Amino acid sequence: MASEHTDESLHRLVADAVRAGGSWADTPPADRAGALGLVADALDAAADRLTAIAQAETHLPDVRLRGELKRTTFQLRLLAETVARGDHLDVRVDHADPDWPMGAPRPDLRRSAVPLGPVIVFAASNFPFAFSVAGGDTAAALAAGCPVIVKAHEGHPELSGATAEVVTTALHDAGAPAGVFALVREPATARAVLGHPDIKAAAFTGSIPAGRALFDLAQARPEPIPFYGELGSVNPVFVSEQAAARRAPEIVEGFVGSFTMGAGQFCTKPGLLLVPAESDLVRRLGEAVLPDAAPLLNDRIAQGHRRTREAVTQRPGTSVLVAGAAEPDSPPAPTLLTTAADDLVKDMEGLFTECFGPTALVVTYRDERELLDVARAIDGQLTATLVAEPDDGIVPPLMAVLSRKAGRLLWNQWPTGVSVTHAQQHGGPYPASTAPGTTSVGTAAVARFVRPVAWQGFPDQLLPAELREEPPYDVPRRVDGRLTSGGGA
Amino acid sequence: MASEHTDESLHRLVADAVRAGGSWADTPPADRAGALGLVADALDAAADRLTAIAQAETHLPDVRLRGELKRTTFQLRLLAETVARGDHLDVRVDHADPDWPMGAPRPDLRRSAVPLGPVIVFAASNFPFAFSVAGGDTAAALAAGCPVIVKAHEGHPELSGATAEVVTTALHDAGAPAGVFALVREPATARAVLGHPDIKAAAFTGSIPAGRALFDLAQARPEPIPFYGELGSVNPVFVSEQAAARRAPEIVEGFVGSFTMGAGQFCTKPGLLLVPAESDLVRRLGEAVLPDAAPLLNDRIAQGHRRTREAVTQRPGTSVLVAGAAEPDSPPAPTLLTTAADDLVKDMEGLFTECFGPTALVVTYRDERELLDVARAIDGQLTATLVAEPDDGIVPPLMAVLSRKAGRLLWNQWPTGVSVTHAQQHGGPYPASTAPGTTSVGTAAVARFVRPVAWQGFPDQLLPAELREEPPYDVPRRVDGRLTSGGGA
Repeated sequence: MASEHTDESLHRLVADAVRAGGSWADTPPADRAGALGLVADALDAAADRLTAIAQAETHLPDVRLRGELKRTTFQLRLLAETVARGDHLDVRVDHADPDWPMGAPRPDLRRSAVPLGPVIVFAASNFPFAFSVAGGDTAAALAAGCPVIVKAHEGHPELSGATAEVVTTALHDAGAPAGVFALVREPATARAVLGHPDIKAAAFTGSIPAGRALFDLAQARPEPIPFYGELGSVNPVFVSEQAAARRAPEIVEGFVGSFTMGAGQFCTKPGLLLVPAESDLVRRLGEAVLPDAAPLLNDRIAQGHRRTREAVTQRPGTSVLVAGAAEPDSPPAPTLLTTAADDLVKDMEGLFTECFGPTALVVTYRDERELLDVARAIDGQLTATLVAEPDDGIVPPLMAVLSRKAGRLLWNQWPTGVSVTHAQQHGGPYPASTAPGTTSVGTAAVARFVRPVAWQGFPDQLLPAELREEPPYDVPRRVDGRLTSGGGA
Repeated sequence: MASEHTDESLHRLVADAVRAGGSWADTPPADRAGALGLVADALDAAADRLTAIAQAETHLPDVRLRGELKRTTFQLRLLAETVARGDHLDVRVDHADPDWPMGAPRPDLRRSAVPLGPVIVFAASNFPFAFSVAGGDTAAALAAGCPVIVKAHEGHPELSGATAEVVTTALHDAGAPAGVFALVREPATARAVLGHPDIKAAAFTGSIPAGRALFDLAQARPEPIPFYGELGSVNPVFVSEQAAARRAPEIVEGFVGSFTMGAGQFCTKPGLLLVPAESDLVRRLGEAVLPDAAPLLNDRIAQGHRRTREAVTQRPGTSVLVAGAAEPDSPPAPTLLTTAADDLVKDMEGLFTECFGPTALVVTYRDERELLDVARAIDGQLTATLVAEPDDGIVPPLMAVLSRKAGRLLWNQWPTGVSVTHAQQHGGPYPASTAPGTTSVGTAAVARFVRPVAWQGFPDQLLPAELREEPPYDVPRRVDGRLTSGGGA
C-alpha cells in the first residue's frame, strides 16, 4: 500500500501550515472569531448528513450524536467569543516607574500572548464530534491563532473526511488562509508531523499506552513541545454512610445512569463506587442494572473492554455482582464487579484501572476512614465525586485529599456530561492529563495554545492593539497591578 | 566518601516535605504571605554577613551583591502580595444555568487552583541570591503553597548553607511547618529527589546539557512532571540603518555596558549585535571596549567561556575585533568577534551559540532584509532587542518574526537587568525555556506551581474561601464570564 504522504508532501503540508499560521496569527481576534462562527454555522447546517454518517460508523444513537454536534458548535462559538474579548491573553501593563522598590527603576513593560504555531490534534473515537476533527482541541487552537493538522481517528473515517470538508470550506469562505486546517489519516504520517521541527504543540485524547508513546516522542524532540494529553481516568465515587442510609434509591439510579451512559465510553465514566458494606446499596445495585447490551464503538474497544473486565474479575477478592453478556462476541451488557476496600488498597494496580465500556467496580467499606485510605492511594483523575451530607465528618478531609488528586470534584452529582463553561476544568494529575495545569474543555482551554510575550519600552503605535494606552476594544487588563474591566458574556 | 543521603534519609526528606505540604497548602494565603515577608526581613537583616560570604565565593562586587539581595527580598514580598490577593488562582464562578445554550443545563461550577505539591529547585551560579536558595523559583513555589527542596549550586556552597539557615529559621519562627523547606547538595541526591514519585514539579536555571538531562529524567518518570527549565539564550540585538546612522555613540555605550555587565554572566547578556556594514559602529566598538579583565564565577565557567570563544573564533568568516586576555589562565577581558550576516545564516550551529562570559559577536549586514533572514533562523530566546527608529520599514516585519522567537522584546533598551513586575516575561521557546508558556520572573511565575480544580455543585460552606458567594477577601474573579474587581498594588 502506498503511504499517505511522501517526505516531500509532508514537508509541504507543514510548510503550508506555517505560512497560514503567520497570517492567521496576525488576523484580528474578532475576525478569527467570525470565521469560527461560520464554521459552527456550516456544521449545524450539515447536521443531518453528518449525524447519519456518524451513526453508521459509531453505533451511537441519533439523539446523542445531534446533542454532541450541538455541543461542538456551541463550543466553537464560545471559544470564538473568548478570544474576541482577549480573555486568553492575560494582558498586563506596567508603566515605567522610577521609584519601583526593587532597587532599580521599572521600565515600561507590557505583556500579552502570541499563538504557539502549528498544532497537531489527535482525534478521539468516543466523541466523534466534540473530541474529533472539529472538537475542543481544534477549536481552541484555531481560536488561539494556531493552524491545526488533525489526525483523524480510524473509528470514524468517513465522518472525519466529511467534517474536515465542512470546516475547510467554511474557513475558506471566511477568508482564512489556505493551510490553516488539514487532515491526515495514517499513524505514521501523524508521528512524522509530531516530530517536525515546525510543529509547536500537540493535543491528544485516548489511552495511556498510545498517549504515553506520543508524549515520549514529543518530549524527545530536539525541541520538546507541549503535549496536552488526556490519557485515562477511573473517576471514583465516594458514598458516605449517611448518604447511603438516606438516599439509596437516588444513588443507585444516578450511578447506573452515569456508568452505563454511552455504553460506558466516556472519559468521565464513574468506574468505581465506594459504598458502606452495611448498607443495602450493593443489593439494590444488583437489581437495578438492566441487561441491555449495546455495541461498542469498534472492535478494538470491545476487545479492550472484555480483556480489562476479565483481568479485574480474576483479582483476589473480586466477585461478579451483575454479569454482562456471556458470549465473547456479542455486545456487552452492563457489568458490575465487587470487592472490599482493603483488598482494593492492597491491589491498586490490578483493580484501580479504567475499563472503557459498561463495567464498574463496587467497593465496600466497613469504616468511613477507609475512604481516606483509598483517596490517598489513587493516582491522577479527571474527576472525583462525593455523595455525602454536608455535616459528614469525613467530607472535609476527603475533599482535601481528593483536591490533590483530581481536576474536578463533584458533590451529589455525576461526572458524565462535561459542561463547556468558563469555570470548567477537564484535566488533572497524570495520567488524567500529561499537562496537569491545563484543561481541554472550557474557555481556559485556549490558553494552552498561546505563549506570553513582554514588550519593553515600545512606542504606543508599534504595540499589539491590546497593549496600547487606549486599546481599541474592552480587553481585560491588569494595569500597574490593578485589574481593569473587560466585558463578559 | 559517604554519600549525603541514604535511601532511607532521602525517603524521609521527601516524606517530610509531603507532610509539610499538606498543612502549608491549607495555610491561608495571607498567612503564607506573612511568613514569606518574615523570610525577606530576615535576609535583609543578614545582608552584611551574606554578601561577605557571597563576595568571597563568587568574585562578584559588593555593590552588585547588595543590589541582588535587595531584588531578592523585594521579589519575596511581591510574590507574597500576589498570592495574598489570590491573583494566581484565576478564580472562575459559573452559577447554575438551566438555559445554558450548550444543549444541557449548566451546573454550578467554580474553579480555583491548588498547589502542585513538593518542588525541587536547582539553584543557578550566576545569581547567588536571586536565582539561588531563596531566589525566584523558591519564592514562587513557597508562595503558591508548595514545599521546596533546593539543590544548592556548588559555586557558592557556604552562602547556600547560610541562606538556607536564615530561611529555615524565619519560616520556623513564622509558624510554617517543619519540612516545608530543605537543602540538598549532591547531584546524585538531587536526581533521586527529582525521580521521587512524591515530587510534583522542578525548576532549573543553567546550561543546555545539564538542563536537558534533568528535563529528560523528569519526563521519563512513570508520572512525568512539569520541568520549568531555562537553558540558555543568545539575546540578539538588531540595529537598523537609521539608528546606526543617528545614534552610534549611544548604541556603542549601551551595548558594551550590557554585554560586559557582570563579566557577561547573565542569561540575558546580548551575545550578538547586528549592525550595518556601512556604518562606523564596528570601528567605534573596537575602540570602546576596555581591556578590563575580571575573574569569572568559577573555573568551570571560565573554561566553558574560553572553549566557546575559541570555537566561534575558528568558524569560517569570523575574525577578532577586540581580543580578550591572551594568557589561558588569566581572567578574561571583554572580547568581540565579528562576522557577516550571510556567514551567520549559513552556520547558525557554529556561530549562534551562548558564550557565557564577556564575549559577543558583532555581525555586519549589507541590506536590512538580512535582519529578517537572521530572525527567521534563530531558535528560542529569552530576549530579542530592536535598536531602531519608529518609522523604519523593517520594524513591523521584524517584530512579527521576533515575537515568535523570544519571550521579551526590547525597544532601544538593553536586555540585562530583568525587572520583577506584573508584566515581566522571562522565558521563551526552547531552549530559552523548556516550558514556553511560563515565566520564571515576575508575578506570573507563581502560576507554574498551582493546578486548577473545578468544584461542581458544592454547598457554599464547603467551598474554598475564594469560591464562596461572598469571599472573605477581594479576590479577582470571573463570575458568569464577567470580571469582578480584585485589588491591586
